[in-house]
Amino acid sequence: MKPKAARKLLERYRVTDGAAFRLADHDPADGGGGIVDHDELDALLADGVARLSELQGRLYAADTWSLLVVLQAMDAAGKDGTIKHVMTGVNPQGVVVTPFKQPGPEDLAHGFLWRVHAHAPAAGRIAVFNRSHYEDVLVARVHPELLDHAHLPAGLHGGKKFWRHRLEDISAFETYLVHQGTAVIKIFLHVSREEQKRRFLSRIDTPHKNWKFSAADIKERDYWDEYQTAYEQAIAATATAHAPWYVVPADNKLFAHLVVAEAMIDALSGMELEEPSPPEAECKLLAEAKARLEAE
Amino acid sequence: MKPKAARKLLERYRVTDGAAFRLADHDPADGGGGIVDHDELDALLADGVARLSELQGRLYAADTWSLLVVLQAMDAAGKDGTIKHVMTGVNPQGVVVTPFKQPGPEDLAHGFLWRVHAHAPAAGRIAVFNRSHYEDVLVARVHPELLDHAHLPAGLHGGKKFWRHRLEDISAFETYLVHQGTAVIKIFLHVSREEQKRRFLSRIDTPHKNWKFSAADIKERDYWDEYQTAYEQAIAATATAHAPWYVVPADNKLFAHLVVAEAMIDALSGMELEEPSPPEAECKLLAEAKARLEAE
Repeated sequence: MKPKAARKLLERYRVTDGAAFRLADHDPADGGGGIVDHDELDALLADGVARLSELQGRLYAADTWSLLVVLQAMDAAGKDGTIKHVMTGVNPQGVVVTPFKQPGPEDLAHGFLWRVHAHAPAAGRIAVFNRSHYEDVLVARVHPELLDHAHLPAGLHGGKKFWRHRLEDISAFETYLVHQGTAVIKIFLHVSREEQKRRFLSRIDTPHKNWKFSAADIKERDYWDEYQTAYEQAIAATATAHAPWYVVPADNKLFAHLVVAEAMIDALSGMELEEPSPPEAECKLLAEAKARLEAE
Repeated sequence: MKPKAARKLLERYRVTDGAAFRLADHDPADGGGGIVDHDELDALLADGVARLSELQGRLYAADTWSLLVVLQAMDAAGKDGTIKHVMTGVNPQGVVVTPFKQPGPEDLAHGFLWRVHAHAPAAGRIAVFNRSHYEDVLVARVHPELLDHAHLPAGLHGGKKFWRHRLEDISAFETYLVHQGTAVIKIFLHVSREEQKRRFLSRIDTPHKNWKFSAADIKERDYWDEYQTAYEQAIAATATAHAPWYVVPADNKLFAHLVVAEAMIDALSGMELEEPSPPEAECKLLAEAKARLEAE
């Protein structure tokens, strides 16, 4: 598979219009149609990371555009591994990874986008959200009792309209970011129930992986179907041409990393990342500086 | 004028649908229709501040709803005086006033709502914005060269669509806040050009007021008409039933204070501010605590 083919892969997983979106149409074990072995995937990923690194340097220099990558998935679908393998090799001065864990008291006293907006990328930067504002329409929807801690007035609490409003507010927030020059891409690492079982068992059976497993994980697995429904509804409501979702097959980790790298490359390639050519006055200053240095 | 009549006044100045809004229809010297002398206004304001203070205490105890007051005006229209006279007497533990001056480097590296969202009120609190996100469609619209510092990609910069997007983003942001239980009211202290002249002259002629005047103020006065147009467009685009504007006649300072106090009272009165009655389990704990204290 050539890099060009790898980029073409993306279209297979990109969702830009949620109207007809069904998660069941997406196979977590999809391999892109081509027979690709481990070594070939490895080489393609290395090539992707190199191109990503080069684009990030230009993003930083241009200092106008920015990129937000929202990473969502079920437990053990490979969020941390994806960040590690796609982002290692990219200058961390230009990349900020923010993990969104359980909200704290100050977060809960504010609207659900408050803590998220604070970490929106600055111009020239890439922000990666490891979990995100989508948890507020995923875990909060599967476990609505979590809303009891959110300081919401009784009348504004729960019900179909409540979730619709949250999804609309998320969509409007992302549209606003796009207006600021932030490309927004949302990744759902789509893992199968069977593959999650295998990975959980591996975490339990392998001593040095034990720390990755918590008893809560197995409890959440009982809500598998509810989560799938919540993901389907969230993706359907918020997939747009300007802030697309990528439903990335994640049963093969390496393949998922490749798709995520290509999605980021694609978003960055859509920007005009010319280093700003200095205005005439500044050219004169540069020439003067050169003359002074050479005269030393 | 009775307090009830004072509340009725509000409807005169409330804009909930911008479609037909014309700033010229609003008289900066309007006095509400009744003949009201200084002492009567003073008494009404004192009564208003007392009611506001009582409502703020209940807002704080309920710890769910919150109130955002956006205060916008031309120079010398009385923003600082309004905050001083309406909010003094209200417990500052529950009130946060944030002045939005020229954005700093970190602000400019982010979207224009970034620094504003950070100061959205927590549950139970009143936030007063002394200037706000509206400056980004007012001063930035009158002086579009300010956008040169905003790290915006060249293609996303300026033009009619750009301002329309900003106004839409503001409206969506306010709608989101309302969904969180934040009442949003926006105040335009509407002063006349003649009254601004009188107040500027007074600031120049009165030594202890000199600090309030800067040479830049007189320069901005040259853009009076441009600002009025920008205000009209901003109010027309963002006045809604759930996030209304109040176009408050501000040639009479005391009258303006009264209207602002009543607008805040009206917003707080729309909330169910019952102190939460503790659940049964907690009642038991309270009874046990009482028994222990009495046994000491």
